[in-house]
Amino acid sequence: MTAVQPVGLWGIFELTLNGSDSGNPFLDVRFSARFTHEEGAVEVAGFYDGNGVYRVRFMPEELGDWTYVTRSNVPELDGKTGRFTCAAPGEGNHGPVRVHDTFHFAYADETPYYQVGTTCYAWTHQGDTLEEQTLRTLRTAPFNKMRMCVFPKAYVYNENEPELYPFARDGDGWDFTRFSPEFFRHFERRVADLMDLGIEADIILLHPYDRWGFAKMDSESDDRYLRYAVARLAAYRNVWWSLANEFDFTAGSQEGDMEKSDNKRMADWDRFFQIVQEHDPYGHLRSIHNGRVWYDHSKPWVTHASVQSGWHVEDFGRAPSLREKYGKPIVFDEVVYEGNIEHGWGNLSPREMVHRFWVGTVGGCYVGHGETYLHPEDILWWSKGGVLHGQSPPRIAFLRRLIEQGPPRGFEPVDWGGDVEGAAKGDEYALIYFGNDQPGSHTLRVPAGNRYHVEIIDTWEMTTSQVEGTFSGEFTVSLPTKPGLAVRLMKAE
Amino acid sequence: MTAVQPVGLWGIFELTLNGSDSGNPFLDVRFSARFTHEEGAVEVAGFYDGNGVYRVRFMPEELGDWTYVTRSNVPELDGKTGRFTCAAPGEGNHGPVRVHDTFHFAYADETPYYQVGTTCYAWTHQGDTLEEQTLRTLRTAPFNKMRMCVFPKAYVYNENEPELYPFARDGDGWDFTRFSPEFFRHFERRVADLMDLGIEADIILLHPYDRWGFAKMDSESDDRYLRYAVARLAAYRNVWWSLANEFDFTAGSQEGDMEKSDNKRMADWDRFFQIVQEHDPYGHLRSIHNGRVWYDHSKPWVTHASVQSGWHVEDFGRAPSLREKYGKPIVFDEVVYEGNIEHGWGNLSPREMVHRFWVGTVGGCYVGHGETYLHPEDILWWSKGGVLHGQSPPRIAFLRRLIEQGPPRGFEPVDWGGDVEGAAKGDEYALIYFGNDQPGSHTLRVPAGNRYHVEIIDTWEMTTSQVEGTFSGEFTVSLPTKPGLAVRLMKAE
Repeated sequence: MTAVQPVGLWGIFELTLNGSDSGNPFLDVRFSARFTHEEGAVEVAGFYDGNGVYRVRFMPEELGDWTYVTRSNVPELDGKTGRFTCAAPGEGNHGPVRVHDTFHFAYADETPYYQVGTTCYAWTHQGDTLEEQTLRTLRTAPFNKMRMCVFPKAYVYNENEPELYPFARDGDGWDFTRFSPEFFRHFERRVADLMDLGIEADIILLHPYDRWGFAKMDSESDDRYLRYAVARLAAYRNVWWSLANEFDFTAGSQEGDMEKSDNKRMADWDRFFQIVQEHDPYGHLRSIHNGRVWYDHSKPWVTHASVQSGWHVEDFGRAPSLREKYGKPIVFDEVVYEGNIEHGWGNLSPREMVHRFWVGTVGGCYVGHGETYLHPEDILWWSKGGVLHGQSPPRIAFLRRLIEQGPPRGFEPVDWGGDVEGAAKGDEYALIYFGNDQPGSHTLRVPAGNRYHVEIIDTWEMTTSQVEGTFSGEFTVSLPTKPGLAVRLMKAE
Repeated sequence: MTAVQPVGLWGIFELTLNGSDSGNPFLDVRFSARFTHEEGAVEVAGFYDGNGVYRVRFMPEELGDWTYVTRSNVPELDGKTGRFTCAAPGEGNHGPVRVHDTFHFAYADETPYYQVGTTCYAWTHQGDTLEEQTLRTLRTAPFNKMRMCVFPKAYVYNENEPELYPFARDGDGWDFTRFSPEFFRHFERRVADLMDLGIEADIILLHPYDRWGFAKMDSESDDRYLRYAVARLAAYRNVWWSLANEFDFTAGSQEGDMEKSDNKRMADWDRFFQIVQEHDPYGHLRSIHNGRVWYDHSKPWVTHASVQSGWHVEDFGRAPSLREKYGKPIVFDEVVYEGNIEHGWGNLSPREMVHRFWVGTVGGCYVGHGETYLHPEDILWWSKGGVLHGQSPPRIAFLRRLIEQGPPRGFEPVDWGGDVEGAAKGDEYALIYFGNDQPGSHTLRVPAGNRYHVEIIDTWEMTTSQVEGTFSGEFTVSLPTKPGLAVRLMKAE
């Protein structure tokens, strides 16, 4: 039994054992460890990391003493024991994000997590120079979630080969039974980089934009890949699982009938969810992102709805309908990107991107950003990262600050303002948004018996201006005649 | 037989006879004239104009000699004959507007009429000072149609009493059997003022916004009023008939079930249309404007659809569906007004108003303007006229100039640009509109064998800039990255 340095709560304990590199350890060797605490035990799958090295990674969720014992079909990896102490988490470590209050999220320590996502699908496949630039950009950007694919991407503006591939070469093709440890070590490092920045990694396990064959593996290879990815990645507390980007487009064509596909059918996606759920000891968040066909987010293994839809956040009254439909947090991960490419999915004006963030927010939902400005070297943020060129991120940062102010809980839609839409945190704090209309005044009706401070917010200029006095019952607020205004109400003591 | 000065084609010949003022001439006296030309005869109802004066007004639609003979149940008005010559129309007189090419309009002389409407519901009830200001405004405004109510209006921002009422007083109420000739003479003068400005008068015969009882007359009074209004007004060539504004709201409440109403039911509206159609010798345009319930514009007496709907012109693909549905011209007479009032129907930004004009235009339809900016004396253009305060009218004027350029025919929707929407006049002239998106480039596919000049249009800045060269087949146009752009294509000789 070996004693090691204490591990912080929700940190990573990693056990490394040396074994044999002969045969195909990815197929031949079963290796796991059972971690035991007075509160219970956790079974954790290990993984082969190449060159005879076997690892098991574990994220302790209880303070105090842990012991472990390994299990393997290979004698030199079996029955190894050890112990470690789980100490207080380091600063800024609030644990993994969980669903909280039905429609919202919180870290494991109950600190609210207000999702403000962005997307750089293939940023980990661009080489260190660009990847490090992306990380520098994220350091000052408003985003606390990154949607990113494990596999490289082949698509318009994505013609470059990745530096690394997830599988070993086999002649001109790939040996799907042999993973590339180097590839996954690199990917994990980027997940850890995001963790250090306080950014959740929404890991997209599969996607259709592929020219290498990774989107069309057989079922056995798909399943093995999912188990391997989960074994390597689940111990990173900032991991979310996105089963796929535009999962339905893997059926072969955008119009494809999934049930006639000879690639992945709906039942395959159900099975993938179940594999991830079964092999992830920590119950990280799980969802799946749609193209035209929506996955049924009411299925029990879906923790929250990851939605591609601009329509639901273009205007009022639509986003809340999805809360009612699914009874889970709604994250609009793709609402069309700010940019200027020719494709309709990538030429939102910055004002419209900001508008969609506000519409989603006052609908009690969460929105994600993306950016697709043409670039001479095809470095579009939406896929490769780099630097941000758009005008929406500072306005999204402004909105994030407003969301984070007030009581530590999520917004619920409220009808305090008639024709417009608003959301409140209880009766203490509300945002009422006027959208693209430009009323010169608006009448509000606040909960009886309370008095409120009123501020007028310009969502584009990022200003707040307090109206003198406090207000109760029904009252009319004068507004400057322009689109993109909101009112913030804060309960007076 | 009396010979008189020649009357211009589509001008007004008015015959005045003196008779008795005793009893109730509105009820008791039947008076009409039959006008005969070598091409045929026209039966025209006369009307009592008070103080023993009886008139019949006639708009000749054929050049050359006309004779007439009166008919009446009163001897002194019966059998009067006369003749006049119909001469060439005066300058700027193109005759009444008719439906042309299924979805469009043209004047009787086949000059195209591209409807660019506005609305001042109650402008003729505001007294001469304000009414003359409205006319001065219209002189330089881009509008060629005015929607206006016969009856005064009682509604928010419309609290003032009119100077004149359409009926004679009867104690505290009204004698619906006695019209006020003074009221109608005033109203007619305003219709003539618009005619002089080249503006069509879309006369709204009935409406629900009433505190005097004019919206709740019995059927006999409704029918008598319609006949009287048509007898007085039909000879003005710029008249269009709008049976009502928000006809369904006359049922008593905005949620009212028309078929349970004790006021006007759907069959009443059908009858009103038939009365107007039967009594108008010239077949002026006829439609009706909806609140929540739409009238069935496919009924045979409806010449074009007068639509209240912002939704159909908010985004692409919606307006053309109404062309398919009705097979008639589609006029979006109310798409929400530019303004800053609290009500959702009156706080469009000017950009959004301009956007809706463009969306309707490239959908092969026509759009109407309205303006509702708060005013210290409640003089909102949408109802009372006055001066324009908004920023959309110059942009609407710019669009009107673009529409009027190119071949003399209406726009038909075309798919020359993929994700965006455009309309063309044959293969000679097209406008492709990018809406609120901001593509940095766009690929167009123009009809085979033709070459085009290409201009980039900024719909807000009102600029056009020609792209060097001519283009054919499929080609990509670079665009500045901003919303509200269009491309104009003109066939090169």
